[in-house]
Amino acid sequence: IEWPRMCGPVRGAIMGAIVHEGWADTPETARTLAEGGGISFAPCHHHGAVGPMAGILSPSMPVIVVENASGGNHAFATLNEGLGKVLRFGAYSAEVLDRLRWMAETLAPALGQALRARGPVDLKTITAQALQMGDECHNRNVASTSLFTRMIAPALCRTAAPEVAAKILEFLEGNNHFYLNLSMAACKAALDSAHGIAGSTVVTAMARNGVEVGVRMSGTGDRWFTAPAVVPDGLYFPGYGPDDANPDLGDSAITETMGIGGFAMAAAPAIARFVGGTPDDALGYTRQMYGITLARNSDYGIPALGFAGTPTGIDARRVIDSGVAPVINTGIAHREAGVGQIGAGIARAPLACFAGALGELGRRLGLAR
Amino acid sequence: IEWPRMCGPVRGAIMGAIVHEGWADTPETARTLAEGGGISFAPCHHHGAVGPMAGILSPSMPVIVVENASGGNHAFATLNEGLGKVLRFGAYSAEVLDRLRWMAETLAPALGQALRARGPVDLKTITAQALQMGDECHNRNVASTSLFTRMIAPALCRTAAPEVAAKILEFLEGNNHFYLNLSMAACKAALDSAHGIAGSTVVTAMARNGVEVGVRMSGTGDRWFTAPAVVPDGLYFPGYGPDDANPDLGDSAITETMGIGGFAMAAAPAIARFVGGTPDDALGYTRQMYGITLARNSDYGIPALGFAGTPTGIDARRVIDSGVAPVINTGIAHREAGVGQIGAGIARAPLACFAGALGELGRRLGLAR
Repeated sequence: IEWPRMCGPVRGAIMGAIVHEGWADTPETARTLAEGGGISFAPCHHHGAVGPMAGILSPSMPVIVVENASGGNHAFATLNEGLGKVLRFGAYSAEVLDRLRWMAETLAPALGQALRARGPVDLKTITAQALQMGDECHNRNVASTSLFTRMIAPALCRTAAPEVAAKILEFLEGNNHFYLNLSMAACKAALDSAHGIAGSTVVTAMARNGVEVGVRMSGTGDRWFTAPAVVPDGLYFPGYGPDDANPDLGDSAITETMGIGGFAMAAAPAIARFVGGTPDDALGYTRQMYGITLARNSDYGIPALGFAGTPTGIDARRVIDSGVAPVINTGIAHREAGVGQIGAGIARAPLACFAGALGELGRRLGLAR
Repeated sequence: IEWPRMCGPVRGAIMGAIVHEGWADTPETARTLAEGGGISFAPCHHHGAVGPMAGILSPSMPVIVVENASGGNHAFATLNEGLGKVLRFGAYSAEVLDRLRWMAETLAPALGQALRARGPVDLKTITAQALQMGDECHNRNVASTSLFTRMIAPALCRTAAPEVAAKILEFLEGNNHFYLNLSMAACKAALDSAHGIAGSTVVTAMARNGVEVGVRMSGTGDRWFTAPAVVPDGLYFPGYGPDDANPDLGDSAITETMGIGGFAMAAAPAIARFVGGTPDDALGYTRQMYGITLARNSDYGIPALGFAGTPTGIDARRVIDSGVAPVINTGIAHREAGVGQIGAGIARAPLACFAGALGELGRRLGLAR
């Protein structure tokens, strides 16, 4: 997507990232630079990466590297900034840029050093545990972030200066969404290894740029099948409502593509209240998703469903046959740059994306024109 | 209880504690000392304290201090040693004693320093969160321990030497039961403030010494109403069975007395499998406990029951009227000193304890002889 069609939060995040990179001194000159065509844009997915909400990843930002041991591939994600005024919701104030600098100069190098000292963290195990602890690893990441912090803390104490370690542990204590980006990169790494299977109707990516929703299917190559993004159905922070909301936004639907997030709502009844629903609604979403997926992931058991596995492997045919669109748990950003999060809710990936993918597969197989 | 009637794990823990205190050089001479009447014994509860399983608390052991802000009282507990060969299951090998020494000399002072630096930790909030994260805060404490670790880690980095902080954080990483003793002391502090209300039939303590189960009721003073302890119904580690098991043991039933633990099984479906049952059994236990309690604790919501509060305030009259005995989640110790944990299961507090308490209250009120 190019600047003229971009939504407010993406523009805001780009302005912030340009200042962060030192390509402009102020958000205003950054806007002029971007408007004038001085910046090249590409989807995170085209660089093996994912980013939540606005999802802006600029060259000097540190990334998480998730290795898919069985697939032999890897994926990247930014580090999560926390809630409030943050780049991923389109904010670009001094506070946002200061945090980005601290993350690049202090947080990421120290975490990297600690990780190298202790060895890699097994994200699949953390996600599996967290699904038994009320997280769905998209909009609720309290358990996973706590488990990750507990695992990394000893090495951090040994490799970082005490005050640096303390500041990082305070940041992790205050950021219940830190694990989101790790979860997303893990999902991306797993799904990429399912991509490119001839004739396969398994969905390997769902992403939203705030204007359109795009879907990739395993058997139809790198092409995105798109449809207009809609405003999620959700709850708003005081003073905001649907008229203020940006349409559905971010790469984080990679979690639903992998069968967690909204697909695992039954594991996270507390999130149902946050996005406007009851624990019974949460069970209902997961049960419905069993109808459009090919398997249950036996590594990811859901306690409230007798430890049944998460609904995994969206089959575009089942989506179209049933008319049941994949459910996505999502934050809601203000439609204007610089404001930030104003709510959270439920979105559905448009059926047209899946119909488009199946049509293309039909053409490739010579079954349709 | 005096030495001749004590069960194996309690004897083993006493032998270990005697060596830990330096009152004897070997477990064997410790046994001789205890057998000969050289040691005075008293229940933890008589000193405002609680200890899980064998529950031995000797003079030089550090304790957690939990303040009940609204009640103005406080309670103590030992620090949790972890699983495996540990004093509370009656083990007294060199490894056990080395750990006790490290806990007294390093762990407790460092945690105390960190706590004084950051200010007190709000245990009620941790328990409330953990109940939404699959813990029942008796036999499952993964979430609560992780949350506690995340809260204390920054201050620990600032106040302890890096290698000391790292070792402590490793200990907390490896001990998913660390929060148990904090949970127990918090329950004790809350229940003590409900004790001593004239005419009240609310149960304020349930405790087991491996030979008898004792119950205290608010309106019957300091007297314990006892009945023989039975072997819990549960699952055993490979190579062990009910014949190896010690009858029900420990002060940890203070958690059930407060409405968590077995009473909050619905919040912890994963524990149902650990003690031999299904998530439906877990829901059933909590639902049954609503029938013998006076209130639902609105601070402790259970997601799987639509955030209904935990069943709180056991009414001895309801227990006797319904014949439904309070359920207790418990570890199972080997009946011989020095072996340790061999399983986990469900026990029921004997009805005779509650009948005894009601009979005494009747006598006090002049309603019965």
